[in-house]
Amino acid sequence: MPSSEFQLIEHHFSHLGAIREDVLLGVGDDCALLQVPKGKVLAVSLDTLVEGVHFLPGVDPESLGHKSLAVNLSDLAAMGAEPAWATLALTLPRVDEAWIEAFCRGFAQLANRYRLQLVGGDTTRGPLAISVQVHGFVEAGQALRRDGARSGDLIYVSGTLGDAGLALQAAAGEYDPGPYRTELQARLDRPQPRIEPALALRHLASAAIDLSDGLLADLGHVCQRSACGARLELSSIPLSPALDRFIQEQGDWGVPLASGDDYELCLVVPRGRQAEFERIAAGQETPFSRVGEIEPAPGIRCYDAAGKPVQIGRGGYDHFGPT
Amino acid sequence: MPSSEFQLIEHHFSHLGAIREDVLLGVGDDCALLQVPKGKVLAVSLDTLVEGVHFLPGVDPESLGHKSLAVNLSDLAAMGAEPAWATLALTLPRVDEAWIEAFCRGFAQLANRYRLQLVGGDTTRGPLAISVQVHGFVEAGQALRRDGARSGDLIYVSGTLGDAGLALQAAAGEYDPGPYRTELQARLDRPQPRIEPALALRHLASAAIDLSDGLLADLGHVCQRSACGARLELSSIPLSPALDRFIQEQGDWGVPLASGDDYELCLVVPRGRQAEFERIAAGQETPFSRVGEIEPAPGIRCYDAAGKPVQIGRGGYDHFGPT
Repeated sequence: MPSSEFQLIEHHFSHLGAIREDVLLGVGDDCALLQVPKGKVLAVSLDTLVEGVHFLPGVDPESLGHKSLAVNLSDLAAMGAEPAWATLALTLPRVDEAWIEAFCRGFAQLANRYRLQLVGGDTTRGPLAISVQVHGFVEAGQALRRDGARSGDLIYVSGTLGDAGLALQAAAGEYDPGPYRTELQARLDRPQPRIEPALALRHLASAAIDLSDGLLADLGHVCQRSACGARLELSSIPLSPALDRFIQEQGDWGVPLASGDDYELCLVVPRGRQAEFERIAAGQETPFSRVGEIEPAPGIRCYDAAGKPVQIGRGGYDHFGPT
Repeated sequence: MPSSEFQLIEHHFSHLGAIREDVLLGVGDDCALLQVPKGKVLAVSLDTLVEGVHFLPGVDPESLGHKSLAVNLSDLAAMGAEPAWATLALTLPRVDEAWIEAFCRGFAQLANRYRLQLVGGDTTRGPLAISVQVHGFVEAGQALRRDGARSGDLIYVSGTLGDAGLALQAAAGEYDPGPYRTELQARLDRPQPRIEPALALRHLASAAIDLSDGLLADLGHVCQRSACGARLELSSIPLSPALDRFIQEQGDWGVPLASGDDYELCLVVPRGRQAEFERIAAGQETPFSRVGEIEPAPGIRCYDAAGKPVQIGRGGYDHFGPT
């Protein structure tokens, strides 16, 4: 077993993920030295996962390794940026070889899939927490910002919404998902960053965000930055069979619309590009659903199939807000 | 008081440090968008400070804001890189406005001094911890790596060594520094990254590292990466009056050589450049001292003024090692 922090880092983190030519110097010096390709700008994002806040104690470390990278890759997807490098700040209560190996396995599997290389890190002792920063490339004019939505634009989301939120309810014993338990848990533990569709569709979208805090909160950020509002059609919100059953039984739209951790993509698309967007989206592995449109008035309004306004009870996920 | 995580981030972290033209998009979107200058490579480094491990509970938040950035800038200095951007992952047990304001003040003061802009962050609830990643620029051929030291090269360090380590002993009540208490504490709380001399001297050095874990440990990393060893002359180790008194009284060279947190610079310089190095170093605000030289045999050997070998008791600072 490595006796020092330095050996620990060397051993486990010196070669994680792809080997990239634009990494001039990786883990092991005072800094990593990195080469951004000509004509591209650097997109960076970071997210921290804290035990007891973002995940339960005793969570499977391989899933945690996956998720800590996935939630960051999801931010690159939301920007339309191509993944390149990551850094990792890992705070551990103790050195547990099996735990670290499993964590690295989950991290590396996803890193390899997107040709991402771990280029730096800091391992410290303390309460379990993981901060990952991802670095990607995008042409300056092609980046998907939050502030580009315009009245009349259409709103699309990828995949299905609310599965991770329902998994949390199931884990807390507040809801029995019956046959869907495993499937829901996988959505919570192993979110899939929507990199491929983001790169395929970015030239058609006027704004984008990834759904980490729930559609109402995240679309709210887009609307705020774009100085507009939105309407959502509840009947168009894409639901998995598990969520469909849940809504039939309990009618609580707060779960698909206001619970976090889905990491699906929300893309806003000008009407003039609708046909081309839907054509390219149809060729993607991940389905996209049109769920509403941008309106001039601030705020987000939800309507049922009969066109009746519906109030959604819960706010988006908020670390410091009332729980 | 901000009621949500998002307002908290917006309010305090949206404009911290300098305003730079190479930041195309800063805090507030899914990613920051950043432009690396032509001909330069990106140098990145991150460090985490955890309460109870790297600093005592109740530490002055303004000092903590300073230190969390300073220890990272020190890594850029050790690479010969010019500071540009930072990101901040801040985990807080609660929202305390006064604490956050003081933290930001300490961070911003140092950021402004080096024209550094905060470009992204993530604020989460949890045990107090701070991860900062810094990003700087350097011409690929000018970066100061750890692996360039060659037998016969001279070893220099900036400032004085051991002050932060002695401050820790004083804070723990293990040593009474008398009139030097305040001065020592300032060295521990407010380390000064040696950016200016690093940029002025980088073209003359063959290798470099910053002293975060003590000279023996950090020079050990340089020797390991450069496949060589070193000799150190104890009589040449630069000591503050406080350390001078301590060594006179207790003779424990472990404090200046093997305690962490000094954040001075260790530069290795080929003999052929000694004269020019010493001439430019003499013009710097921070003094440099020649403390030894690189030797072919692995390991670091210390000698007293009479040329007698001296064993230094303690290893460098190690988060996971025995304490």
